[in-house]
Amino acid sequence: MSIALLSAPPQKVLQQTPGTAPLPAGLFSRRTQRIGSENAFRIGPQIRELEARGLKVIKCNLGEPDFPLAKHIADEVKRQIDLDLTHYCDPQGILPLREAIARTMSARRGISITPDRVVVFPGGKPAIGLTQQTYCNPGDEVIYPSPGFPIYESFATYLSAKPVPLHLRESAGFSFTGRELAALITKRTRVIILNFPSNPTGGVVSAEQLKDIADVIRRKAPPQARIYSDEIYEDILFDGHKHRSIASLPGMAERTIIAGGVSKSFAWTGGRVGWAAFPTAEEAAVFRNLNINYFSCIPAYNQMGAAVALESPQSAVEMAKMRAAFVERRDLMVAGLNAIPGITCRKPGGAFYLFPNIAGLCADLGAITAHRKLPAALRARTSPATLVQMFLLWDYQVATLDRRSFGRLGSEGQHYLRLSIATGLSDLESGLLRIRAASGDRAGFAKFIAKGQHLC
Amino acid sequence: MSIALLSAPPQKVLQQTPGTAPLPAGLFSRRTQRIGSENAFRIGPQIRELEARGLKVIKCNLGEPDFPLAKHIADEVKRQIDLDLTHYCDPQGILPLREAIARTMSARRGISITPDRVVVFPGGKPAIGLTQQTYCNPGDEVIYPSPGFPIYESFATYLSAKPVPLHLRESAGFSFTGRELAALITKRTRVIILNFPSNPTGGVVSAEQLKDIADVIRRKAPPQARIYSDEIYEDILFDGHKHRSIASLPGMAERTIIAGGVSKSFAWTGGRVGWAAFPTAEEAAVFRNLNINYFSCIPAYNQMGAAVALESPQSAVEMAKMRAAFVERRDLMVAGLNAIPGITCRKPGGAFYLFPNIAGLCADLGAITAHRKLPAALRARTSPATLVQMFLLWDYQVATLDRRSFGRLGSEGQHYLRLSIATGLSDLESGLLRIRAASGDRAGFAKFIAKGQHLC
Repeated sequence: MSIALLSAPPQKVLQQTPGTAPLPAGLFSRRTQRIGSENAFRIGPQIRELEARGLKVIKCNLGEPDFPLAKHIADEVKRQIDLDLTHYCDPQGILPLREAIARTMSARRGISITPDRVVVFPGGKPAIGLTQQTYCNPGDEVIYPSPGFPIYESFATYLSAKPVPLHLRESAGFSFTGRELAALITKRTRVIILNFPSNPTGGVVSAEQLKDIADVIRRKAPPQARIYSDEIYEDILFDGHKHRSIASLPGMAERTIIAGGVSKSFAWTGGRVGWAAFPTAEEAAVFRNLNINYFSCIPAYNQMGAAVALESPQSAVEMAKMRAAFVERRDLMVAGLNAIPGITCRKPGGAFYLFPNIAGLCADLGAITAHRKLPAALRARTSPATLVQMFLLWDYQVATLDRRSFGRLGSEGQHYLRLSIATGLSDLESGLLRIRAASGDRAGFAKFIAKGQHLC
Repeated sequence: MSIALLSAPPQKVLQQTPGTAPLPAGLFSRRTQRIGSENAFRIGPQIRELEARGLKVIKCNLGEPDFPLAKHIADEVKRQIDLDLTHYCDPQGILPLREAIARTMSARRGISITPDRVVVFPGGKPAIGLTQQTYCNPGDEVIYPSPGFPIYESFATYLSAKPVPLHLRESAGFSFTGRELAALITKRTRVIILNFPSNPTGGVVSAEQLKDIADVIRRKAPPQARIYSDEIYEDILFDGHKHRSIASLPGMAERTIIAGGVSKSFAWTGGRVGWAAFPTAEEAAVFRNLNINYFSCIPAYNQMGAAVALESPQSAVEMAKMRAAFVERRDLMVAGLNAIPGITCRKPGGAFYLFPNIAGLCADLGAITAHRKLPAALRARTSPATLVQMFLLWDYQVATLDRRSFGRLGSEGQHYLRLSIATGLSDLESGLLRIRAASGDRAGFAKFIAKGQHLC
């Protein structure tokens, strides 16, 4: 499989592997040319290529807790398989799980969500695209945080909606003000995506900020605009932070879609159970029908495991262990990164990512100049931070992600990497040493650029 | 949840439940108004309503084998959970499963499929919609069998592609000729859907017919047109029929997408593992990226179970048992239905459905006249066969599906029901008795119509 293909401009999608007949012109629909990707998955084959050479790669690329699935959850899944809960089930999600979601979501947010407003999906992701499909006509506007989860922007372009990045400023703690949001809202705004705690910055939201955002939405957003509050990291909070949802504020539950899932809270990324609670049962019914069209349903035994995960007291014990490990790693890595010349790194309040500013490192290594000198077509597909990311991966075997991987529009001139700390402490220590060594290897970087491979 | 909502015309989608604020006008995108549904799932809540009254419902609605998941498959899934194969995996599908699919698909069809052309999806369904999204611009044409699986037509309308039903004629064994297909192919044809063995008719394809179809496609279809060969029922064949795939014919593998999955062959509808093999690795890469955008990946432990299902010798033993049961039920039901005045039923060669012609029954019960007398808006949303279907469900507790559930366009004047025989023999016997009783209950039918509920 060609890796270039997935991030390539339209004409590259039509490239064929040697030896096969050329693909007919016009084979793919126009929308196919417009979709983006999630680089965390996209670089998987590159990592495997390095590993096949016998190299050990430190994987700070994927947002996947390195903890095993907790025994009480695994046991429930296996028990349900033994009970032969292995057949078709309610396409909206089985009732016991929707009830558990409604209870836990309502209790934490101080609102009242009923199971008929909840829809279960095969993972946290499907709701992102399906929400845009449901509320946006071509030309309608989707406001999303940037840097932010790449799928927000990818679907907007796929659907010919207008992607409207809400740029987060590092100086404001990777946050934004109501005034900044207000400047982006128009009559065509249909979806406003919020994501606290945030991927990739680890930012959390303050009560004041949330009130400010809600005020702006109440005042300025058209009645058809829905808030998509991606709260998938709600359980990964440090330093006494409590989870805050915009749905808790007056007038907001009526227009907010609250999304969550099992991947992050329970280290169960391979369970593929996610969900969303919709403002009304009527809207949930539309998504139930999308499930019927796209998936039929989601494995019921996995859903029963998810219900146990949400409500078993054992889950809190497991989460506390994970959080403690994340805090230890975060503190080590933030200190270690800040000790490397050219890197500054803020301490995140939640999620399991660091988002260091590497502007100095880009300058020191010569990445900014190297990028400027690239041929125009290639230059447009990469960035100084991308060159550093690739240098770290191919010459030092540390897998990270560049700023561009988290929303491309308007990302020029921003020099950041995302490092996941959802990997073990000794690997992280080894990663730090490698990044420090790479940071002083100006000659190696020049050689890497000169070789001309893996530059985007 | 409002059931009417899912099959309702646009204005009905905006109906709200009593007591909640009205939904803002223009909340849903235009495409949302155009999507259809699969009634097999849609009537689930109606069945539950009857069961809640303490009534026993004979469920001939769902295409779900009533066999437990085989032990060797369940054991493998549980073993992989114990090995903690519970995290993110290759979004294209894990390699061991793609290899097993490539091997078994190639061997049966006498062609050579490589694992890089295979993509695994969360069920057999996702590939249907994603294929249309990938190959069709608005106005491009999708040819699909009618009666056929309803999702074919539903996605074409959702995507503003042009749905082009290929009508199957009962007199030709619910089949079609190359000439009939040729008449529908135009320069805008992008996807031609074939489905043998067929849902809902149980039709299988002869070698001559397949050659005829391939000749027409070779001669007339534009180079960008892909064949979507839905072969999900490939293992459910009776009376010595062998599975035939159009991909086996000269020049066809290069343009055929072969779709399959675990739901029907292994009675594992709740595993949600399906797949498709694409003509080229480049096309597979496009679908891999759609998986990244929509789902991330599919549970790896389920995929390992699917790999065992495909290649374990034990699976053949289990399938032989299932097939023997289906033949016994088919023979009982075909004879029983044909003994009821007003019903004629052909003997299907595969799948697990009967598709009796109930034109006589519709006339005998007065359904054709009753339908003609309905108010125009309601009349357009139902049919004589639908009225009989609903009468059987609500007054006799036999769940079946009407002709309209399998492609609406051009279905007027066709009087059929689909009965799944994937339910136990004693239930089927009881279902037969109830249908026979209903067939003589002209007064009851008149009362049912007069009550005016559940008429669509």
